[in-house]
Amino acid sequence: MNRNGNALFDPKLENYLRDAQTSQLDELSEWLRIPSVSTLPQHKADVERAAGWLAQKMEAAGLQNVEIIPTDGHPIVYGDWLHAEEHAPTLLVYGHYDVQPIDPEELWDSPPFEPTVRGDDLYARGASDDKGQLFAHVAAVEALLAASGPLPVNVKFLVEGEEEVGSPALTAYLPAATEKLAADVCLVSDTHILSPDQPMIIYGLRGVWAGEVTVKGPSQDLHSGMFGGAVHNPNQALCSLLAQLHDSAGRVAVPGFYDEVQTLTEEERTALAQVPYGETELLQETGAPAAWGEEGYTITERIGARPTLEINGMWGGFIGDGFKTVIPGEAHAKVSCRLVPDQPSPAIGPMIEQFLQGIAPPTVEVSVNTLQHAPATVVPLDVPEMRAAARAYKSVFGVEPVFSREGGSIPIATVVQESLGIPILFMGFGLPDDNLHAPNEKLHLPNFYRGIRVGIALMQELISS
Amino acid sequence: MNRNGNALFDPKLENYLRDAQTSQLDELSEWLRIPSVSTLPQHKADVERAAGWLAQKMEAAGLQNVEIIPTDGHPIVYGDWLHAEEHAPTLLVYGHYDVQPIDPEELWDSPPFEPTVRGDDLYARGASDDKGQLFAHVAAVEALLAASGPLPVNVKFLVEGEEEVGSPALTAYLPAATEKLAADVCLVSDTHILSPDQPMIIYGLRGVWAGEVTVKGPSQDLHSGMFGGAVHNPNQALCSLLAQLHDSAGRVAVPGFYDEVQTLTEEERTALAQVPYGETELLQETGAPAAWGEEGYTITERIGARPTLEINGMWGGFIGDGFKTVIPGEAHAKVSCRLVPDQPSPAIGPMIEQFLQGIAPPTVEVSVNTLQHAPATVVPLDVPEMRAAARAYKSVFGVEPVFSREGGSIPIATVVQESLGIPILFMGFGLPDDNLHAPNEKLHLPNFYRGIRVGIALMQELISS
Repeated sequence: MNRNGNALFDPKLENYLRDAQTSQLDELSEWLRIPSVSTLPQHKADVERAAGWLAQKMEAAGLQNVEIIPTDGHPIVYGDWLHAEEHAPTLLVYGHYDVQPIDPEELWDSPPFEPTVRGDDLYARGASDDKGQLFAHVAAVEALLAASGPLPVNVKFLVEGEEEVGSPALTAYLPAATEKLAADVCLVSDTHILSPDQPMIIYGLRGVWAGEVTVKGPSQDLHSGMFGGAVHNPNQALCSLLAQLHDSAGRVAVPGFYDEVQTLTEEERTALAQVPYGETELLQETGAPAAWGEEGYTITERIGARPTLEINGMWGGFIGDGFKTVIPGEAHAKVSCRLVPDQPSPAIGPMIEQFLQGIAPPTVEVSVNTLQHAPATVVPLDVPEMRAAARAYKSVFGVEPVFSREGGSIPIATVVQESLGIPILFMGFGLPDDNLHAPNEKLHLPNFYRGIRVGIALMQELISS
Repeated sequence: MNRNGNALFDPKLENYLRDAQTSQLDELSEWLRIPSVSTLPQHKADVERAAGWLAQKMEAAGLQNVEIIPTDGHPIVYGDWLHAEEHAPTLLVYGHYDVQPIDPEELWDSPPFEPTVRGDDLYARGASDDKGQLFAHVAAVEALLAASGPLPVNVKFLVEGEEEVGSPALTAYLPAATEKLAADVCLVSDTHILSPDQPMIIYGLRGVWAGEVTVKGPSQDLHSGMFGGAVHNPNQALCSLLAQLHDSAGRVAVPGFYDEVQTLTEEERTALAQVPYGETELLQETGAPAAWGEEGYTITERIGARPTLEINGMWGGFIGDGFKTVIPGEAHAKVSCRLVPDQPSPAIGPMIEQFLQGIAPPTVEVSVNTLQHAPATVVPLDVPEMRAAARAYKSVFGVEPVFSREGGSIPIATVVQESLGIPILFMGFGLPDDNLHAPNEKLHLPNFYRGIRVGIALMQELISS
C-alpha cells in the first residue's frame, strides 16, 4: 500500500472510492430524510422506517445475517460478515440511527429533514450524530467487498434506535446476546475530532444523570393580582432552588456530588493541556460573551474531566405571546449531570432531591425524578487495538491523533465495554461545530469521505496489531 | 318598594326577573361560547364576533345609539339610553368582552368555551371576568325598560375588547370622547365580593407593570455534554437573576421600588384588619402549603395595599417530553408588578433592568422590555354615589358591604377616572374562588341574578343620593 498523498489503497479500491462518492452522499441523504426522532412518540413509525432502511443498505453492502430485532422500544439492527482468515480479529461496529428533536425549528436555515449541501457541508438532523458517521462504516465494508475481496477482519454491526433516550432496549438486550456479539474490539464513531485535519481519539467519556425537578405550590393556577405577594410563586421558588445548585465558584453545590471524584493527576493535566483548545476557541465556537465554570480548572478540564450540572430546560406559568397575570400551580426544570469515573450515577437523583428538599421553604413542595443515568467510561490507552486506531487515523489524515477525554456521554458504551469485556475505540470524524442537538446540524463532507477511508484502514491495521 | 325578603321591587318587575332567569342564562352562555381571547392573534375574528353579539344584545335590551367603534386593535362597543327625567344623573357602565387565554387547557373539567352548569355555578372562560358581570347590567336595563318603563337615570355603556391586554385602544380613544362619555359616576363590575352573602366595595386597585426579561448567552443552542461547565447556561443565569428580585424577607429587592410607596396609616391598617380574610382562608382557597410574603404585613395588606413582583411565566431550553441535553442560547421570563398609589409605573421597567444588569455576570446579557404599565387607582369614600352603592348592595344582600382595597389592577379605571373626572364604583359580584385567569373559571349563578338586582337598585338609589 502506498501511504503517500491520497493513494493510500490499491488503485482498484481508490478508483472505487472516487467513483462512489456521489452515490454515498445520495444514499446517506435518503436515510437522513427519515425523521427518526426517538424521544417523540409521534415519530415511532419513522424510527422503524429508518431501521428498515439501514437493514436494506447493510444487505446491499454485503453484510449477512441482517436482522431487525424487535424490542419493547425501538428496534435494534444487526448484521455481520464472518469470513475473515483464521485467527483474524472481530470488529464490532456500534452506532445509532435515531436522532434528536429539531426544536427550535425556526432557527434552521434549511429544513432539518431535507438534507442540503452548502459549501463542503451537508446540513440535516442526524448528519453527524450519528447517521453520517455510522453510514461511513457500512460504506467502508461495501467498498472493500466490492473492490478488494474478503475483509481482513470479521465484522459485526450493532445499531440501535434509542441512543438519544438512554438506550433502554439495547441495555436490556445485551446481557443475553454476549455470545452473538462476541468481538475483540468495538468501534464507535459518535464523537468529534479536533478540527478537519486533526484527528482525535477519545479515551474517556463522562457518565450522565438526567431528571426532572418539580416545584408545587398552590393546587392550581392563581390570578397574580389577587394572590401575588401572599402565596409563594412556584416559578420564583424554582429559580431560588436552581440558583443554589451551583456556588459562586461555579462548583456544583449538592453535598456528596464530588465525594467519589478522583483528583486529576499532574500527568492527566499535562496531557489535557496539550489539546489546543482554550477560551479563545470556546468563545469563537459558541458565541458566548465570556467563559464560565469551575474555578481552578482549564476549559478542557471543565468539559472533559470534571463533572457538571446543567439546566437543559425549564418552564412554568404563561409562556405564550402577550402576557397573563398568573401564579402557576407548578414549575418544572429538566436537569442533567455529566459524571466522571467513580461517581455513582444512580445516587445523583436522590442526592439532588435531598439537597433541594433541605433548602426548600415550607411554602412549596419539591421533588426530583430520574429519567436516565449511566456511569462514565474510560478506555485503556495501552492496548494494541488503540495503537491500530492511531495508525489508521495517521494513515488517512497524515498526522498523529491527539488523545482526549470528552464531555459528552454515550451511556451504552459503558454497558458494551462491561458486557463484552472489550475495549472501545471512540474514533469519530464529526467536528466540534457540527451543531449536535441544535439547529443546523451538519456533516463536513471531506471528513465523511475520510471517515470511510479510516474505517477501511482500521480493518487493515487491526490484523497487524 | 318593599325591601323585605326577595320582594325588593314592585310585583311586575319581580315577576319579570323571575321569568327571565332561563333566557338570561341561555343568552350569556351563547356569548361565552365565542372565544374572544384578546391576546392571541388567531382569535381576532372571535373577538370581533363577541363585540357584534354584544351590540345586538344591547339593542334588544332597549339601549340606543349602539355602535361598534373600530380601533387599531379590538373594537369598542357603545350604547346609551338618555331619556331620564331632567336633572337625573348619568351612569356610565364600563366592562370588557375579551377574555384570558385558556391554558393549561387539560386542567379544565369541561371545555372552556362550552358553558356548563354544575351545581349553582356556570363554568366557562369569561363567565366571571367579565362577560357575566357586564351582561348582568345589560339585563338590568332590559328588565327595567320591559317591566317598569323609563329608567330612573341616564345610562351609557362603554365596553372594550382589550382589558386583558392593557386597554391600548380605549386609552387612545378616551381623550377625544369625553363629551360623548360625560357622566356623573362610572360603574365597574369586574371585581369580586367577599363571599356569596357578603358584598364588598373596592375603593382601591393596584397599578401594574408587566414586561419580559431576556437572558442571552451563547449565540445558539449548544450540546450540554460538549460545552456544559464551560459556558454559562442562560437558564441557570436567569434563575440566579430572578431569585435575587426578592430578599429573604419577601420584599422586592429592586432599588427604588418602594421609594414612593406611602406608609400605611394606622387608620388604614385598622380598616383592612376588619376584612375577615387571613391565612386560613388564603390556604383553603389556594391550596398552597403555607402563606408567603412581605414580613410585617398581614395577608390583606400584602394583597391589597403593598406592591408586589411576580414571575408569571418563564421558559428556556427543551421543554418537551423526554429530554434533550442542550444549553439554550436564551432564557426568558414574563414578570409583572402590582403597584400602589404614587409608584411611578413607567419607571418600573427601567428600574428592574438597571438592577438586573448591575448584578448580571459578564457571562450573559440581560435585558428587560415593558409590555404594559398603569398607575394605581383610589376612589374617595365620602361621595354620595358611594353611599348609593352601599345602599344598593344592602337592599339586595340584606347586609352592609365591607370596603377593601384590592390586589388586582384595572388599568383603564385610572384612565376613565382621570379623563372624565368622575368617581368609579367597583361593585363586583364575582367570588374569590371564581378561578379568574385559571382553569375552571366560573360564575356563581345566585350572585349573577343578584347582580342584575344590584344594577337595578343602584339606578334607583342614585336618584336619591
